[in-house]
Amino acid sequence: MKTRLFTPGPTPVPEHIMVTMAQPMVHHRTDEFKDAFVEVNENLKYLFCTEQPVLTLTSSGSGAMEAAIVNTLSRGDHIITVNGGKFGKRWGKISEVYDLINHQIDVEWGSAVSIEQIRAELDKAPDTQAIFLTHSETSTGVFTDVEAMAQEIRSDFDGLIIVDGITAVGAHEMRFDDWELDIVVTGSQKGLMIPPGLAFIALSDRAWKSTEKSDLPSFYFDLGQARKAFEKGDTAWTPAVTLIMGLKESLAMIRREGREDVWKRHARLAAGLRSGLTALGFKLFASPPSNAVTSAYLPKGQEKFQKVMKERYGITMAGGQEHLKGKIFRVSHLGYYDEGDMLTFLHYAERTLSDLDIAFEAGVGVATAQQTFSTLLSTQ
Amino acid sequence: MKTRLFTPGPTPVPEHIMVTMAQPMVHHRTDEFKDAFVEVNENLKYLFCTEQPVLTLTSSGSGAMEAAIVNTLSRGDHIITVNGGKFGKRWGKISEVYDLINHQIDVEWGSAVSIEQIRAELDKAPDTQAIFLTHSETSTGVFTDVEAMAQEIRSDFDGLIIVDGITAVGAHEMRFDDWELDIVVTGSQKGLMIPPGLAFIALSDRAWKSTEKSDLPSFYFDLGQARKAFEKGDTAWTPAVTLIMGLKESLAMIRREGREDVWKRHARLAAGLRSGLTALGFKLFASPPSNAVTSAYLPKGQEKFQKVMKERYGITMAGGQEHLKGKIFRVSHLGYYDEGDMLTFLHYAERTLSDLDIAFEAGVGVATAQQTFSTLLSTQ
Repeated sequence: MKTRLFTPGPTPVPEHIMVTMAQPMVHHRTDEFKDAFVEVNENLKYLFCTEQPVLTLTSSGSGAMEAAIVNTLSRGDHIITVNGGKFGKRWGKISEVYDLINHQIDVEWGSAVSIEQIRAELDKAPDTQAIFLTHSETSTGVFTDVEAMAQEIRSDFDGLIIVDGITAVGAHEMRFDDWELDIVVTGSQKGLMIPPGLAFIALSDRAWKSTEKSDLPSFYFDLGQARKAFEKGDTAWTPAVTLIMGLKESLAMIRREGREDVWKRHARLAAGLRSGLTALGFKLFASPPSNAVTSAYLPKGQEKFQKVMKERYGITMAGGQEHLKGKIFRVSHLGYYDEGDMLTFLHYAERTLSDLDIAFEAGVGVATAQQTFSTLLSTQ
Repeated sequence: MKTRLFTPGPTPVPEHIMVTMAQPMVHHRTDEFKDAFVEVNENLKYLFCTEQPVLTLTSSGSGAMEAAIVNTLSRGDHIITVNGGKFGKRWGKISEVYDLINHQIDVEWGSAVSIEQIRAELDKAPDTQAIFLTHSETSTGVFTDVEAMAQEIRSDFDGLIIVDGITAVGAHEMRFDDWELDIVVTGSQKGLMIPPGLAFIALSDRAWKSTEKSDLPSFYFDLGQARKAFEKGDTAWTPAVTLIMGLKESLAMIRREGREDVWKRHARLAAGLRSGLTALGFKLFASPPSNAVTSAYLPKGQEKFQKVMKERYGITMAGGQEHLKGKIFRVSHLGYYDEGDMLTFLHYAERTLSDLDIAFEAGVGVATAQQTFSTLLSTQ
C-alpha cells in the first residue's frame, strides 16, 4: 500500500531533497556551508518579501514564538492575543511565563477574530505594546486577514504587530515590509517542505529597536547574537546542518516556481479540496478557511473515517485538537502538493464513505475538484 | 579526492543512517514514531547509565545547557563555574543572563580544574547551589575527571553537580546514577553520530526537586512539559523527526557494540592518535587529554598545516578557538571512527609534513599508532 502524508506539519519532503539531506556531513564553519547558508538567507528574504534578515533558529516554531516575545517585550507590558485555536492561545501561554499582562480575545474556534474585536480591546488597553495574530490557525484551519488588519491597526497603533506565520508562510501572500509587520515566525516542516527542526523569524526596524529596551532574559534565543552571526553568514549555535542543506533546495524550488505562483497554487488546491469535500456532503469547519489546511466535521457517528483512511488507504491526516478531538479532521495542502494529490485524497475519501455505508454520488468529489481547478486556473 | 571529516561535531554519520534519515516523513503523532521514540529513550538511558528519563530537545547543545539552568536555579543563586575553555565559560555566560552569582574559577586553557580549586571556591562561597563541570572541553581537548570530582564533592555538598557532557557522552565512561550527578547534557552531532539539531538532558531526583522552587522563566525549554510528554512517549513540541529516526539506528549501533566497548574504543583511538602525533614531533596541547578530541600545537611557523591537509588531502579538522586560533589544531575521534581512520589521518599528516619540508621519520606516525592499538587491545 502506498502511504501519503496529509498533515499540516510535518509535510512531505520532495524526494530529491531527502537525497540531498543524506549527503555526507559538512561542517558548519566551512565555505561550503557558508555559501549554502547565504543562498538560503537570500531566498528566505525573497519568500518573506523583506529586506530584513530572516534568522534561522534550530528549534521548532514554538521556540521562535518565544524568541519573538523575550527579545522585544518587558515584564508588565500589556499585550493583546487571540484565543481562536491552540496556537493563538500559545502566545498567551508564553506571555504568562514572562509576566506580561495579556488581554486575551476569545473567539469561537473555527472563526477568525474581527478588526472590531481588536479595536475594542485596544480601546480598553491603550498601553498595549504588542498585538499577536495567527495568520493561519493550524488547529482550526482558520485564515486571518493579516494584511487588512495590519493596515487598519497601523493607522494609529505604534506598538508591535507580531504574526504566527507557521502554516501561512508559503501558502498565503505575506509581504513583511509592505504590510509593515513587525515580527513573523515560521517553521521548516510546513510550507518550506523540509523536516522539522528549524524555525525562522524576521523583525522590522521597530521590532529591532524594541530589543534594546526589552528586559526579558534569553540566551539560546537571543536574536542579537543570532543577527551578529547572520551578518557573517553564520549561526550563533551549531545549526541543524542537514536541514539547512535541504532548505537550500526547497527554497530554490519556491524561487523557480515564483512566490506568487506558489501562493496561487495553494489557493487553488484549497478551493478544489473544499469544493470536493462539500460535494461529498462534508461540512466545512473553518470560516474563513486557510489555504494551508482544510478542516471539516467528521461524518456524524462515523469518527472512524480518519482511521479507515489511514489503515485501508494509507492516508495520514490530522484530527481535531483539545475539545475538537473526534469532531473534525484536517487535511494539509501545504508545501509539496499538487492537484493530483487533492484528487487522490478525495478518491480515497469516496472509497471510505462507501466502506462506511455513507450515501454520496460516486465520483462527485473528484469531479467537482477538477472543475474548481480548471475554473481557477483560467481566472487566477 | 576522498574527503573526510575529523571535527569534534558535526562528526561523520554512518552511511546506513543517512539513508534511514532520507526515508519519507512520518508524522510525530503516529504509532510508528512513538515506537521509535520509546526505543530511543530506552537506549539513551542505557548510554547514560541511568533510570531517569533522558529528555530529547530540538536545539543545539547550548539550548540544553540553558535548560539545565533555567529549570533548576533562581535569581541570586550562587554557582561555581570553570573557565578552562570556550564551553566551560559558556556556563558563566548563561548564568549572567539569569542574574546568578557566578564564582568563576579561571584555569589556563589546556589544563583541567583541580579538586583543590573547587574546594577552595566552595569554602569561599558556601551557599553555592550548583557546580558546573565540563567533562570533555571541546575547545581545548581537556578531560576533567568528573567521577573522582563528584565523589569528592558529594561527600559534603548537597547542591547540584551539573555536567556538560556534550563531547564526552559516548566517548568517556559516564555513569549518571552511580556517580550521583544531577544534570548531564549532550548533543546529537557528537558521540551519537547523527547530524546536529537534537540535545539531550537527564536530571537526578535532586535536580527534579529543585525544578519546583526555581523562579527562572522558560517556555520552550520547560523540562516539566518535556517530562510530561516523555511519559506518554511524546515530545512537548514538534521534534526533529528525521534526526530521531536516525538516532534510533545510531543508538542501536552503540547497544550492539556495548557502551563499555564504545568507551574502550575511544580510549584506544585517542591513545593511538596521540602516540602517532608525538612520534611525528607534534607537541600535544591538553592535559589530561579527552578521548573525544585530540589537540596539538601547529608546527612552528607552519600554521598552514591545517589548510594543506584540507586542500590537498581532503581532511577537515578543527582549529583553535578564541586566543588559540592559529596556535593549535584539533582532531576528532568521537563517534563513528575506527583505527583505520586514525592511521589515515596520520598518513596524510606525514604527507603534509613532507610538503611543508618539516623533518620527521617516514612512517613513524602510522607505525607508532599501530603499536599503541595492539598494546591497548591486549590489555584493555
